Amino acid sequence: MTFVKPFLPEEFRRRVQDVKQRMEQAGLELLICQDPANMGWLTGYDAWSFQYPQAVLLHLDLDMPIWVGRLVDVACAQVTTDLPAQNIVSYSDHLVHHPQLHPYDDLCELIKSRGWSSATIAVELDAHYYTARAHQHLMKGLPEAKFRDSLGLVNWARLIKSDAELVYMREAAQIVSNTMREVISNLKPGLPQYKVAAEVYASQICGLDGAYGDYTSACPLIQFGENTNAPHLTWTDKPLPKSGLVLLELAAARRHYHAPLARTVHIGKPPCEVERLADVIVEGVDAVLEIAKPGVVVEEVDGVWQRILRRNGYSKKGRSGYSIGINYPPDWNERTVSIRAEDKTVLQAGMCFHFQSGVRLNEFGAAISESFVVTQGGGKRLTDVDRRLIVLD
Amino acid sequence: MTFVKPFLPEEFRRRVQDVKQRMEQAGLELLICQDPANMGWLTGYDAWSFQYPQAVLLHLDLDMPIWVGRLVDVACAQVTTDLPAQNIVSYSDHLVHHPQLHPYDDLCELIKSRGWSSATIAVELDAHYYTARAHQHLMKGLPEAKFRDSLGLVNWARLIKSDAELVYMREAAQIVSNTMREVISNLKPGLPQYKVAAEVYASQICGLDGAYGDYTSACPLIQFGENTNAPHLTWTDKPLPKSGLVLLELAAARRHYHAPLARTVHIGKPPCEVERLADVIVEGVDAVLEIAKPGVVVEEVDGVWQRILRRNGYSKKGRSGYSIGINYPPDWNERTVSIRAEDKTVLQAGMCFHFQSGVRLNEFGAAISESFVVTQGGGKRLTDVDRRLIVLD
Repeated sequence: MTFVKPFLPEEFRRRVQDVKQRMEQAGLELLICQDPANMGWLTGYDAWSFQYPQAVLLHLDLDMPIWVGRLVDVACAQVTTDLPAQNIVSYSDHLVHHPQLHPYDDLCELIKSRGWSSATIAVELDAHYYTARAHQHLMKGLPEAKFRDSLGLVNWARLIKSDAELVYMREAAQIVSNTMREVISNLKPGLPQYKVAAEVYASQICGLDGAYGDYTSACPLIQFGENTNAPHLTWTDKPLPKSGLVLLELAAARRHYHAPLARTVHIGKPPCEVERLADVIVEGVDAVLEIAKPGVVVEEVDGVWQRILRRNGYSKKGRSGYSIGINYPPDWNERTVSIRAEDKTVLQAGMCFHFQSGVRLNEFGAAISESFVVTQGGGKRLTDVDRRLIVLD
Repeated sequence: MTFVKPFLPEEFRRRVQDVKQRMEQAGLELLICQDPANMGWLTGYDAWSFQYPQAVLLHLDLDMPIWVGRLVDVACAQVTTDLPAQNIVSYSDHLVHHPQLHPYDDLCELIKSRGWSSATIAVELDAHYYTARAHQHLMKGLPEAKFRDSLGLVNWARLIKSDAELVYMREAAQIVSNTMREVISNLKPGLPQYKVAAEVYASQICGLDGAYGDYTSACPLIQFGENTNAPHLTWTDKPLPKSGLVLLELAAARRHYHAPLARTVHIGKPPCEVERLADVIVEGVDAVLEIAKPGVVVEEVDGVWQRILRRNGYSKKGRSGYSIGINYPPDWNERTVSIRAEDKTVLQAGMCFHFQSGVRLNEFGAAISESFVVTQGGGKRLTDVDRRLIVLD
């Protein structure tokens, strides 16, 4: 089998050990992960199968996790993980999309057969694919268990990246930087929006220097004209304007590690108010990168940014950034640290963030974002695209 | 605003009317949809925002649904729907990824403010993004409400496609047929797997005859070598072999309406057992298309297929197909009808299916699938790629 695993077995062992310690501290015996990023981080499992119920189970008594999924995906688990055969378990296929039964009925039987039916069990209550119905079947099938919210236990364990993970983060950042430059250099009036999207996909997958890219957790976001403050629309066949703003928010992924990046382009001479907003955003992100050192509290980072916006007459509602790392659709957000007021997380070296820095005014929006890693010297940019409003004449 | 809505207002009104009738028959007063395909089908709402809590609410007393989502996506709702301003409601951004609070807390307040706090409310208990935690917040915030599972009420309402929807289904099918032909014609030994993936994305987005494609609900699935029975792996940089099987399962999407398609290619002269399996699959799908007429029960369609497999010494566990239509990541499956034993749905004209027809043996797998629409004359193929094992010399 020629599949190259993204990490050595030691890395997965260390992660499992770390998570078991966190479980012990939290008084948990069994953890059920449904978040595909958590499943992948703990075991290496990597397949587009998260549209079906599946899980990775970790019990304090186990050396290695147990993968549970569809029969058709057993081969994917065999290829992508180091799990021994007895730790790869499939549920009956007739349980899929069944009006009364559910794949988690089989999961309950597995848990009972291991003698864990009265365990303290943590589930990922707010993970994207952990549906209310899955939880009901689990609670009904294991009436003696004590269920708790994992509160993102594995997401939090993922927060500080290992050296091996940082290699992928940097490669992803190099790819997205290259894609951003390529795409911007090809923008011209009349080019339909969907052609820009097609170019992004081709470039982010072809990658750079022999390092290909994976699918990213969200589609390329490309807005222009009246829609620069409606950032999540699907592309259309609308042609790029002769003059005006183009907003690009893209990512690239290496072995599912994501580096997002946003840039603002103006075709033709930009109006003063666009230039001014862009300058303030760059100034704000500069200040953020300077302060983002180990020991600093996250809300202080947001404070620096907000003060610069306010001093210039702008404001941004909501958070200005979030932690990043391994992820799967539909989101490249790690769902732990939010760079915003009230977030008391203390920065540590190796944490990675996307400082989104998008500011939307009534008439238009702009964003000049960075993916960065926290270092002793401050936030070190992973990406390397010019940090300014890019003007195409 | 130059955004072209995919359907006329009448189409959305008809859908809302149909769903309200189904709600009345089911004894429901309020329906909360979180499935992005259901949200889009009812209102036109179209944005990559499903990684955050959001919903479309429909109450029997309302003429039009209410959209609820993040502040940043209000503009997307304004652009893509016909909803009046008072039916577009945002929740407070600080509720996002908050350890104690949840955006559905605001949703509860909205429901109370409308006087619906003791209503019989259907939620989509098993929709991908309807998390167990969202449901807990809803139940806690509305203690007098009677909660019921919608049991896919809107998914079932989507089952028979309108003429306007069939236009997009056919366009999507033409795009994926073109993509499949293009990709196959460029396959050659040594080509890295990721380059095939990049080509698929570029082709399925560039579309055909001026009809561009949207993002599809799953990534292209491209397997070869030892991995043809591990169908959901991410691509790698492994080169195509000098000789051997290549399996492709792709889709294209027009205004989010999906047509999936699988083909099996053999580079070099195929072994007899591969040819034989492919021939049997084609024979089986032929028989399926012939029988798939209005009035036929779905399990009979599966029976025809299974008998042809068995007669030739093969078998396939699990279902052989599923209904298709509008969808969003991570799944192009409509999650209603499954072509398998026990499914008693009676076929009606305008239903669309992907007959997946993949058969995995111990050593290899093959699939020659079709997307089709049920007509009086039988299952009419939407796609038009040669239905045979494709041999590249």
